[in-house]
Amino acid sequence: MNIYDVSKKANVSIATVSRVLNGNPNVSDKTRAHVLDVMEKLGYKPNIFARGLGLNTMKTIGIMCSETSDLYLADAVYYLERDLRTHGYDALLCFTGYKLETKQKYFDLLCSKRVDAIILAGSKFIEMRPKDNAYILDPGVDIPIMLLNGYLEGENIYATLCDDQAATHHATTQLLRSGRRRILYLYTSISYSGTNKLQGYQTALTDAGLELDARYIRQCPKDITAAKELLLSLYDQGLRFDAILTSSDSLAAGAVKFAHLMGIRIPEQLAIIGYNNSILSRCTDPELTTVDSKVEALCATTVNTLMGVFDGMNVPKRTTIAADLICRETTDF
Amino acid sequence: MNIYDVSKKANVSIATVSRVLNGNPNVSDKTRAHVLDVMEKLGYKPNIFARGLGLNTMKTIGIMCSETSDLYLADAVYYLERDLRTHGYDALLCFTGYKLETKQKYFDLLCSKRVDAIILAGSKFIEMRPKDNAYILDPGVDIPIMLLNGYLEGENIYATLCDDQAATHHATTQLLRSGRRRILYLYTSISYSGTNKLQGYQTALTDAGLELDARYIRQCPKDITAAKELLLSLYDQGLRFDAILTSSDSLAAGAVKFAHLMGIRIPEQLAIIGYNNSILSRCTDPELTTVDSKVEALCATTVNTLMGVFDGMNVPKRTTIAADLICRETTDF
Repeated sequence: MNIYDVSKKANVSIATVSRVLNGNPNVSDKTRAHVLDVMEKLGYKPNIFARGLGLNTMKTIGIMCSETSDLYLADAVYYLERDLRTHGYDALLCFTGYKLETKQKYFDLLCSKRVDAIILAGSKFIEMRPKDNAYILDPGVDIPIMLLNGYLEGENIYATLCDDQAATHHATTQLLRSGRRRILYLYTSISYSGTNKLQGYQTALTDAGLELDARYIRQCPKDITAAKELLLSLYDQGLRFDAILTSSDSLAAGAVKFAHLMGIRIPEQLAIIGYNNSILSRCTDPELTTVDSKVEALCATTVNTLMGVFDGMNVPKRTTIAADLICRETTDF
Repeated sequence: MNIYDVSKKANVSIATVSRVLNGNPNVSDKTRAHVLDVMEKLGYKPNIFARGLGLNTMKTIGIMCSETSDLYLADAVYYLERDLRTHGYDALLCFTGYKLETKQKYFDLLCSKRVDAIILAGSKFIEMRPKDNAYILDPGVDIPIMLLNGYLEGENIYATLCDDQAATHHATTQLLRSGRRRILYLYTSISYSGTNKLQGYQTALTDAGLELDARYIRQCPKDITAAKELLLSLYDQGLRFDAILTSSDSLAAGAVKFAHLMGIRIPEQLAIIGYNNSILSRCTDPELTTVDSKVEALCATTVNTLMGVFDGMNVPKRTTIAADLICRETTDF
């Protein structure tokens, strides 16, 4: 039962039903009475977050984001603000850093300011321990919570995700098909998104009948120099690899520096794949093959879903968007 | 005449004077009367933007910013929000793009929302034609306007600037001292900051007794590939250079790609200097010598100045911060 059923049964447009729901005065009294009558007969209950009579709305959406030195998040903040603005909403911005305590504090702060919704941008907001997500699931929170590339099940929670697992599965499979056998996977965090990326890599290997080797799965700070130095030390320890798949372009940029330093030819002797299709991927020489994780589309979908919630529509609790593999100069396929 | 003079004359702390100005109840009636008396005797008029009786404040600062794909601006938004937050202010964010019309529209929008001040982040907000800045100077605007790396004279306008001219003068002089004679200057925009950077380059050359040559001053979109291609075409036309100074790290990253493509050795045959000390400067191979334009310090000073204005202090209308030249691998000094 949703706004479409009401529109069909009442024989009025969806826009008219939406106007009635939002208390918009541009509906005749007769039509309004008719639509309300149909709603009652159908037993239609608008989503509790539908704007009701349009009272008490601040037309302001809180955006929580870890930081902007992460280029992915800088883009996300830009696209979210732009898309919210086109719908007449202001963006109230909170950079939270990565500490749970600070995230909780800012979440409460935004709630206390009576924003109409909160967008959690980036998968760093979903913690591995369920109790650490309690603040988001608090039944006292009576506004929609939008997760951008994170997932959590809850009454008022809507998630838009990039299919990171399919993306790393595809990238790994492409590397295998081009003859690579010793594929090193470099990652930074074990966030929701980070876990999916790792699983994509692992299942691609097992799907190809290969054994997993823990020595080829390595954690590294998201930093060019840290990645270069980790690779130098692994090489020094005798580990050999013919491809490196990474969870971010910074790690891949570090891999390029490692190869240059060791005189290893890219992609002939070493293939490298980045993640996020950030400006870094075009800055290295050779330019990075990388996964485009579609941040612009994720932001647009997040905002559209939120507007659907406000309009009392039946919106999906979870939307997944496919990534693209952008082939440049660090692979030979 | 400022809050310090009142504090000294009344023999009370600055905090007490500030409390009186802000209508804070934690001051005894006797002290309040004494401080007000001293103010009158001294003829002290608090800054019109001092918070008066603390009424009608939203505790919200509007931030206008062109976009965040410019890494400098992404950093600025992050630091500004963080520093405002520590003072208990919210940041209402507007990405305006580069069109004058849109900038004016968002400026008016923020004013209509009764924000306590507006920060214009980045030098793209000050236009070359004075009439295009009229919207900022509008006498109807009764809140402080803070310019981050832009300058405009006006009643309620406060600017914090990086000394871009001294920075490019110093960089050019260093190149000359290391024996470079044909220094190409690549820049993107003729904003306030862009004009200063160009002047620094030009005066360094004339200070060294060298002639200016228009062929060595070139405009280029802020894009790695565009810079690479412009350099290839200049080289093709027979122009030769032994150093490239740029107005941004993206242009310098394009210069590195150009040199690699042509087999030109960096820094032996070609020195390259970037601008902003962004993550791009550490991503290229060799890593870029670049100007650190101190965006974090600029943001901190902007917010401190604004808090000073709110507290009725006598703050400078213009603060200039010196840049640093960070020497890495694309120069030999």
